[in-house]
Amino acid sequence: MRVVALSDARGIGVDVLGAKGRGLADLAELGLPVPPGFVIGTDSHRGWLADGWTDELNGLVDDAVTALEVATGRTLGGSDPLLLSVRPSAVMPLPGLCGPLLNLGLITETVAALGEAHDERYAFNSFRTFIEAFAINVEAIDRGRFDACLAHALALADVSAHGEVPADLLQYVCQRFLSIHAEASGQPFPMDARLQLRLAVEAAFESWAGEAAVVHRNRAGANHDQGLAVVVQAMVSGDLGERSGAGLVSSRNPATGAPVPVGSYFSDVHGTAIAGGHHTGALADLATDQPELHAELMAAVATLELHRRDMVQVDFTVEKGQLWILQANVGFRTGQAAVRIVHDLVHHEVIALTKHEGLLRLTAEDVEQVLHPSFDVADRDVIATGLAASPGAAVGKVVFSADEASAAHAAGEKVILVCQETSPEDVHGMSVAAGILTTRGGLASHAAVVARGWGTPAVCGAQGIELGHNSLRAAGVSVSAGDVISLDGSTGEVMLGELQTSASEPPPEFAKVLRWADDVRAGQLSVRANADTGADAAVARNFGAEGIGLCRTEHMFLGEDRLPIVRQMILATTPAKEKMALTRLRMAQRDDFLEILEAMDGLPVTVRLLDPPLHEFLPDLEQLAVAEAKDELDDEGRELLAAAREWHEQNPMIGTRGVRLGYLKPGLYAMQVTALVEAAEERLAAGGTPIIEVMIPLTVTANELAGARGWVEDVLAEHPISDGGAQVTIGTMIETPRAAIRADELAEHADFFSFGTNDLTQLTFGFSRDDFEARLMSLYLDEGLLAGNPFESIDESGVGELVRLGAERGRETKPDLKLGVCGEHGGDPASIALFYAAGVDYVSCSPYRVPVARLAAAQAILRASQE
Amino acid sequence: MRVVALSDARGIGVDVLGAKGRGLADLAELGLPVPPGFVIGTDSHRGWLADGWTDELNGLVDDAVTALEVATGRTLGGSDPLLLSVRPSAVMPLPGLCGPLLNLGLITETVAALGEAHDERYAFNSFRTFIEAFAINVEAIDRGRFDACLAHALALADVSAHGEVPADLLQYVCQRFLSIHAEASGQPFPMDARLQLRLAVEAAFESWAGEAAVVHRNRAGANHDQGLAVVVQAMVSGDLGERSGAGLVSSRNPATGAPVPVGSYFSDVHGTAIAGGHHTGALADLATDQPELHAELMAAVATLELHRRDMVQVDFTVEKGQLWILQANVGFRTGQAAVRIVHDLVHHEVIALTKHEGLLRLTAEDVEQVLHPSFDVADRDVIATGLAASPGAAVGKVVFSADEASAAHAAGEKVILVCQETSPEDVHGMSVAAGILTTRGGLASHAAVVARGWGTPAVCGAQGIELGHNSLRAAGVSVSAGDVISLDGSTGEVMLGELQTSASEPPPEFAKVLRWADDVRAGQLSVRANADTGADAAVARNFGAEGIGLCRTEHMFLGEDRLPIVRQMILATTPAKEKMALTRLRMAQRDDFLEILEAMDGLPVTVRLLDPPLHEFLPDLEQLAVAEAKDELDDEGRELLAAAREWHEQNPMIGTRGVRLGYLKPGLYAMQVTALVEAAEERLAAGGTPIIEVMIPLTVTANELAGARGWVEDVLAEHPISDGGAQVTIGTMIETPRAAIRADELAEHADFFSFGTNDLTQLTFGFSRDDFEARLMSLYLDEGLLAGNPFESIDESGVGELVRLGAERGRETKPDLKLGVCGEHGGDPASIALFYAAGVDYVSCSPYRVPVARLAAAQAILRASQE
Repeated sequence: MRVVALSDARGIGVDVLGAKGRGLADLAELGLPVPPGFVIGTDSHRGWLADGWTDELNGLVDDAVTALEVATGRTLGGSDPLLLSVRPSAVMPLPGLCGPLLNLGLITETVAALGEAHDERYAFNSFRTFIEAFAINVEAIDRGRFDACLAHALALADVSAHGEVPADLLQYVCQRFLSIHAEASGQPFPMDARLQLRLAVEAAFESWAGEAAVVHRNRAGANHDQGLAVVVQAMVSGDLGERSGAGLVSSRNPATGAPVPVGSYFSDVHGTAIAGGHHTGALADLATDQPELHAELMAAVATLELHRRDMVQVDFTVEKGQLWILQANVGFRTGQAAVRIVHDLVHHEVIALTKHEGLLRLTAEDVEQVLHPSFDVADRDVIATGLAASPGAAVGKVVFSADEASAAHAAGEKVILVCQETSPEDVHGMSVAAGILTTRGGLASHAAVVARGWGTPAVCGAQGIELGHNSLRAAGVSVSAGDVISLDGSTGEVMLGELQTSASEPPPEFAKVLRWADDVRAGQLSVRANADTGADAAVARNFGAEGIGLCRTEHMFLGEDRLPIVRQMILATTPAKEKMALTRLRMAQRDDFLEILEAMDGLPVTVRLLDPPLHEFLPDLEQLAVAEAKDELDDEGRELLAAAREWHEQNPMIGTRGVRLGYLKPGLYAMQVTALVEAAEERLAAGGTPIIEVMIPLTVTANELAGARGWVEDVLAEHPISDGGAQVTIGTMIETPRAAIRADELAEHADFFSFGTNDLTQLTFGFSRDDFEARLMSLYLDEGLLAGNPFESIDESGVGELVRLGAERGRETKPDLKLGVCGEHGGDPASIALFYAAGVDYVSCSPYRVPVARLAAAQAILRASQE
Repeated sequence: MRVVALSDARGIGVDVLGAKGRGLADLAELGLPVPPGFVIGTDSHRGWLADGWTDELNGLVDDAVTALEVATGRTLGGSDPLLLSVRPSAVMPLPGLCGPLLNLGLITETVAALGEAHDERYAFNSFRTFIEAFAINVEAIDRGRFDACLAHALALADVSAHGEVPADLLQYVCQRFLSIHAEASGQPFPMDARLQLRLAVEAAFESWAGEAAVVHRNRAGANHDQGLAVVVQAMVSGDLGERSGAGLVSSRNPATGAPVPVGSYFSDVHGTAIAGGHHTGALADLATDQPELHAELMAAVATLELHRRDMVQVDFTVEKGQLWILQANVGFRTGQAAVRIVHDLVHHEVIALTKHEGLLRLTAEDVEQVLHPSFDVADRDVIATGLAASPGAAVGKVVFSADEASAAHAAGEKVILVCQETSPEDVHGMSVAAGILTTRGGLASHAAVVARGWGTPAVCGAQGIELGHNSLRAAGVSVSAGDVISLDGSTGEVMLGELQTSASEPPPEFAKVLRWADDVRAGQLSVRANADTGADAAVARNFGAEGIGLCRTEHMFLGEDRLPIVRQMILATTPAKEKMALTRLRMAQRDDFLEILEAMDGLPVTVRLLDPPLHEFLPDLEQLAVAEAKDELDDEGRELLAAAREWHEQNPMIGTRGVRLGYLKPGLYAMQVTALVEAAEERLAAGGTPIIEVMIPLTVTANELAGARGWVEDVLAEHPISDGGAQVTIGTMIETPRAAIRADELAEHADFFSFGTNDLTQLTFGFSRDDFEARLMSLYLDEGLLAGNPFESIDESGVGELVRLGAERGRETKPDLKLGVCGEHGGDPASIALFYAAGVDYVSCSPYRVPVARLAAAQAILRASQE
């Protein structure tokens, strides 16, 4: 068990002092003016958990207080009273802990002494806030009764600000607060400063095991036995007259990253009021009023930036002309600022980060923020919240159907498409919407997947929205078609009216920094995009994609003009009719492929043959059955109902999909490959360089793959495009556990593997993603049953093991086997690190995620080389 | 390339000679009278595939023919003509090969010579049949034209049997047959005996690559490059007068196993007519007419039985008083006979099989046949065919609903329940039906699973049945309620009327032989049963089950009296209502558990906590939606519709099931464990010895299992039944790939694992069993995409690898971890061998499968010890 003075903590780690304690010790070591104090170490907390408040712990704290009394020349509970701040200091950020206690040590006698030394109003106001904070944090008493009492006092005095309540009334308020405390807690307020300290420390200790903290540690996979430190410091006060005050300063502009300190300063204001950072006072005032002190502050900020080698944000207090640094953090910044700061610090004469250090400083969120517009945080009035399904901010007029979206878009309107859920038939409306809002469906719902692919902001499965006919109600508000709403796809929030969005133009440093990342990745880990159209492919290439890792040909089946042909194929009663439908599809697909190959000329394009169950191209069975019951079906409807019944499956996710469909509908895959090869022929004729990778989905056995490969080779034998200079390879998805386990056998028939980690995760866990996310995911995360959402970051020890196994066994058979990952994990930084370690050659993700993946891939390589 | 004389084949294996060739060589080596001949080896076939009919091959065959001419003193195509039989000889049984060609060597000249030597009618009739067989087998000419021509000749001669057609007309028929052959094949019939031989051999070679043979090899996982041998022998003839004839004799009775030779003999009959074995002629005639020859035959049969150390079946021909053995096989026998023969041969003075050898001779089908009644094979008139869902023969009156089944049963009727598919609400009718027939659903459908559990014969997903209101039509026949039909659950056939069933009383040797198996298994591999009721448990114990490996508590939720309470729990709008429903369920479950623990007193009972998705306890969503559309729902119906919608899932197989349900409905699992523990308390009070294993289903992470284990332990802490002498352990199913992969972590919280290989197979392959079996399984087996049905025998290299991994990693953490298998693979011999090799302690299967598993487990152990 350790209790360590801030001035004497050199060499003691964050694991003992907690982050806050270690940070203050750093300030002291740099010779900066930090209020004296001490840290009760995490080991003391662990000791307390085992044995309670022992004599040993009591003695250590007593000695530390005594030393502090000596250092400050004041006495805890004495006539020149030492007042303390007491704050928990966790090793990692941890919400739900006990709040800070300021001015601890105030009792009847010290309040009187304080009143004499400064002024009475200040003394009673400090006492009032301390009683309240103590009651709330230590005794868990509800805040409401204190608030009500104070409101009565303001009314009585006929004033509107706390600062204006006269001293004698404040004194009375303190009496009332003491009574409320005594009543609610069943015991008198402790008028013993050392006892206050002990109770405050124990309350902090207890908050470690509170529900919110436990849930957070569960979600973060953090150690429940680490324990908590507590920081105790002498109070300094910014509201002791004109030459007192408090402020916040950043070494650089946290919004833009510009290398000029910015901040705020309020004279004669109590320190806590600043903490939220909402006030804006002028730092320039300090420069004018107390120029030497301002210079001292600027020097301290510069010292700290050099020490931290990063932008810092400093909390400071001025007490009667004396500067005190309360806290210095590596400051929060926007994504735009983060990129600029990294760039500038690499070019900084003294700090001179290496490019690699700089890259490791950035996060996926930084890159995302740069690319997606976002709303101003402060002024949002949320009417409903759903899943943050596709990031970005969108504003537009509400429409309730895909057709209306289409029409409004044609009329030049920006629209938000609102519906229960989307289906393939809505794609024409979705593609033109500025944002998509659904009341049903999870992060893997049709709306979510399609929106992410296009970078369209989307909120899915929004709670509390009642959909009516051409209107919706939420939070008591009625919204009609044509009304404007704002969607935040990064938070899942829905707001009424038009919110201001911040610009989404990347700063000039952005491209430069990403090129550093590309230099790191070169030859080791490529980044491709999942794109299904020429337009998407062009966007992806613009974002730096080095090819297409997944072109889902089913999306080509969903166009308004295609769906009827697909249905003809499904409904075909004779081989001739089926063949005719296939021929029409082939011509349509050829045009699609042509656009994609053009947009990605000279780069590889991986085309996955048809994957989803055929019933996805048919109307909903239940709706058809209901329509039939109501006698509303015509002949075509009845035919569709019969087909929907025939193709209906118990568990479509693990049903007649992928290559199984290829075996069930002979000619389907050959048709697709023919369309692709014809497109390649046209590209060759136009002088292009098509590079094609044909991918067979959902393979489970080697013979299955060998047969499917045969179909592709048969088409290639008829169209020898390799002779014309086209590159063609044939491979398979690894998306079933069996495919990963028997990768050695599959590799005999594959030129490449692409891990389909979405399906692999569903099958390895036995989680139907939509069902699980709707019903169970948050429960499983809150209770720590899952270490994380395995659909966001790959499950390292389960699914990850299959990826490693598949890579290893595939390469045992074929050492030069190309390995890729498509699916959403391909854009997730943690997953990318695992893929890199497994030997994967490229990751593929949605176009808007490509810059994130470029950064994350470089980071994975740099971190691996550091180990 | 080898061409080997039968008399000179010692030491040449079946891989060269094929099974038929090797068998004939054996006969020759035993000194038995086998017609002389030679075998064209499989290597010759492989050579032919590569290079065609080379000079080398031609020379080898020529030399062999010459040697045969020398041996027989006859000449191929000569005036004392050598006639040949030519038959393919595959290494493994292989349907679809070229048929036998008899009397090869007949050309105009030899027919004349034959006519002179014997009689003309015989000569022309032999020629006629040879031309026809040659045309069909070698030239693939349709049989119809020959049949028509012969029918005209019979009409012309006004006779009804072929044998009665006069010689001159037969001569004309031969002319016509030659013309038909020439017309259809485009070339004249080969009047060159050596050319006939070459064409016959090449036709046999070609048939190796025919579709039927390829499909069979695919399904059997056999080598496509093995090649085929061809046997060529001198013809012997049984229709050369009174002292000629042909017959078939078994060394023991193939129906009962009784140790007395039985058989049939027809004098003066052409040998091929016997092959089918349908005729019944008296072997006693031969004993009377030719006693010495009969004695020679009996001696040969005895020699062969001693040589083969098994019952043999011998084809023989008598040519003018000379006995020829044409073929000797280890004869086909019924299951009942198989058991008796093994028993008798163990006690046979000379053969004296060891018990272990005897056990290895039996098959699962033998044991099944002994236990299940079966129909007489010959006289069935099949009106429809479906999946053989639950073995056995059933006869009864047709009913079309569970309620009618119930009522008819109460009135003392035996009924067959016929419906589209069954659901939990039909259980009361299913339990009393003699057989179940459904028109929808696969081998894992509700009807199939329930029927197998009870040993009730069932045919599921029957094709070609049109269900009407209280009647059905199939094969043009209309069947009304009350009509009698017969179901064969072992073949999937449905017959009109009442078929005779064979007795199902096991022979007295059955129990004895199974006890030998138990002696082998003792201490190594136990056999338990899957049983959900006291009655099932009693049946299982009677069949030798050593405990219950899987008690599915959901089946207890499905009783007519329980379902409404389960629905109350699901529909509960307040915790109080939910608790009330749980309490009522607890009382019902306690009674069920009590019966089971009583039936299995002193043996372990593994109780799986609730596993299936809750919507299985609600009516069908589509039906409810349709009823609502028709305005047919009352308040309760609307409530059920809302619940069905709420609990509806995209992919229920991988949805809210198993322990996930436990987390979603807190108190559910505790309720079940409480019911179980209360039952155990009652058993203890009655002097019983309850042994309980509580099993958590569908676990994927260690924390999930730890939490669920906690619920069980909390109940046990309140009811300390261990103090009273009850044994309680807590374990989990391993049925997701992740559970197998992270078995090391799960083992920390488990006393035992039970591999749920059904679900593990579904997830490892990504196969929804019902969907896959309905649409794709036969395609996948026919095309060799799967080596076998992985739901019948475990997929050795995929799913099997996860079982091995799970066992290995579980035992790394906890060396004494108990390992079991429940699910249908637990009763499959090939799977049992894999489980034994993986270190499993017990397998569990349906009660009627227990004897099969006892045998298979012993066989697995014996085979492993031989390796």
